[in-house]
Amino acid sequence: MRSEFEFIQHIKKKYALKHIGDDCAVLPKDDKTDMVITADLLVEDIDFRLDWTTAKFLGHKALAVSLSDIAAMGATPKWAMLSIGVPEKLWNSDFLDEFYEGWHDLAKEFGVELIGGDISRVLDKIVIDSVLSGEVPKGKAILRSVAKPGDAIYVSGELGGAAAGLELLKNGLRNSEKLNSAELKLIRAQLAPTPKKGFVFQTFGVAAMIDLSDGLSSDLAHICSASGIGAKIFSETLPINSNFGSLDLSSEKKLDLVLNGGEDFELLFTVDEKKISPEFLTEFHRIGEATANVGIIELINAGETVVLEPKGYRHF
Amino acid sequence: MRSEFEFIQHIKKKYALKHIGDDCAVLPKDDKTDMVITADLLVEDIDFRLDWTTAKFLGHKALAVSLSDIAAMGATPKWAMLSIGVPEKLWNSDFLDEFYEGWHDLAKEFGVELIGGDISRVLDKIVIDSVLSGEVPKGKAILRSVAKPGDAIYVSGELGGAAAGLELLKNGLRNSEKLNSAELKLIRAQLAPTPKKGFVFQTFGVAAMIDLSDGLSSDLAHICSASGIGAKIFSETLPINSNFGSLDLSSEKKLDLVLNGGEDFELLFTVDEKKISPEFLTEFHRIGEATANVGIIELINAGETVVLEPKGYRHF
Repeated sequence: MRSEFEFIQHIKKKYALKHIGDDCAVLPKDDKTDMVITADLLVEDIDFRLDWTTAKFLGHKALAVSLSDIAAMGATPKWAMLSIGVPEKLWNSDFLDEFYEGWHDLAKEFGVELIGGDISRVLDKIVIDSVLSGEVPKGKAILRSVAKPGDAIYVSGELGGAAAGLELLKNGLRNSEKLNSAELKLIRAQLAPTPKKGFVFQTFGVAAMIDLSDGLSSDLAHICSASGIGAKIFSETLPINSNFGSLDLSSEKKLDLVLNGGEDFELLFTVDEKKISPEFLTEFHRIGEATANVGIIELINAGETVVLEPKGYRHF
Repeated sequence: MRSEFEFIQHIKKKYALKHIGDDCAVLPKDDKTDMVITADLLVEDIDFRLDWTTAKFLGHKALAVSLSDIAAMGATPKWAMLSIGVPEKLWNSDFLDEFYEGWHDLAKEFGVELIGGDISRVLDKIVIDSVLSGEVPKGKAILRSVAKPGDAIYVSGELGGAAAGLELLKNGLRNSEKLNSAELKLIRAQLAPTPKKGFVFQTFGVAAMIDLSDGLSSDLAHICSASGIGAKIFSETLPINSNFGSLDLSSEKKLDLVLNGGEDFELLFTVDEKKISPEFLTEFHRIGEATANVGIIELINAGETVVLEPKGYRHF
């Protein structure tokens, strides 16, 4: 079965769509500024479950996923269009008021203005489409396609937390004060993630960047594919989520969550280390290097090298 | 139960959202240009039925509804973001290829470029969110809120066709060469409407404008509410769809379709007739006048005046 990534490539080629293929489309705005824009569709029982989350967390997350795409371009978020379809039973409740409250609290923090959208009835499952724009100085959007062999590969923070939170929810745990602090943090990482702010990366001359939404193995494969490079990752350098210690997980499972778990909304970027301030880089985690081995991601784990296949989230 | 229009007003007020309340949001782009942008959510079995339409018609209509919002601002369409959620059984078919073909054929005609969007799996019903931007010369977007008492009220074309087509579909007729020409035209008006181009209206100095998506009675009420005016409509001047002649419909039913049937995607506008070329207006249908009777729409029908309540489409 073709994946959604393959279908998007097919449509891009068939209709010669030159703006498609990065976290955001980049369009000229005025003489000094480019606009970036992204869309994220969230579907009940595919992307979230109402018995796991709250209306407020859902509003927060609907914006967070798009803020992360804007950050991945090194851009500053500006305005949003929010479309939502809700069934009648939720319309006649506080659901939408709480949803917009969660959305708006995060929007305020990131300086985002809601300028439009649509509201529709659905028969059953909620659906949300979050469209968010941002701005960067002209020509300064950070693309996926400009990584070069020899670049170092960094991630902006700890990995695997959101996926571990998802496992806890699947195992029956719920967001509640009864949980221990580590469990609660992991579940919150899944339900109400806090995205990075991206403009700093633009200032410091990062080369290529993508946000970690599908999972490290898949998102790194996107950079490799767009840039025509390969990569080498050292498993002992991967920043495992610091709350994993209190979980009863094998080291294989932890590595799987870190490599293939999605929705951490950290940033994955490459840099030419000779061109960038070492002080800037101390904030982040160096996990490997870009190589000329086009399309191949090598994982060096306990002295052994294996080829890492993209196993992050796919819809199809 | 509060309508979606009331809820949008509530959110607009609660969060002081100044760009919400017209067919599109209007944002500054550069020194000479404003950008307008709209979102339309289409949900299977609410807005369309797969046993009534085709994937190609659906792609066409997903863009058409948004093109009409752009036209209502007097703007020229530019780029689109298209998000779609499809169930697995349709993913493994030609559905999406045909959907994008229908979308793209209309996009080509209107000069629209697809720059992004999202593709997701859904468990059951298809959902589409169509986001479309356009451009107008700075300060020239045509708003709903600037109609004045004394303005004449015009519509850009015949009314009731799409709603009559919907009735035919509900009665079991299907888009097929077996239908007579009038039936086929009405069903096509419902399934694959052709929106107007709006920039001409901007050039000729139209005052207020809205597109007829919910239905004349509701959309005129939106202009009255936004402009703080009333209106008087003369039923004998209403341009009834010319294919109605061959249908077995009472004159009451025809009037109901014209007044309350949605999705004709004609434009409803007001003009100060002293300020506009009479030749421009000969192309359109004068149906009434704006009054100072705030919030009241009078319908003059066979010598009698009745108050016209908004009975167009509502989700809630």
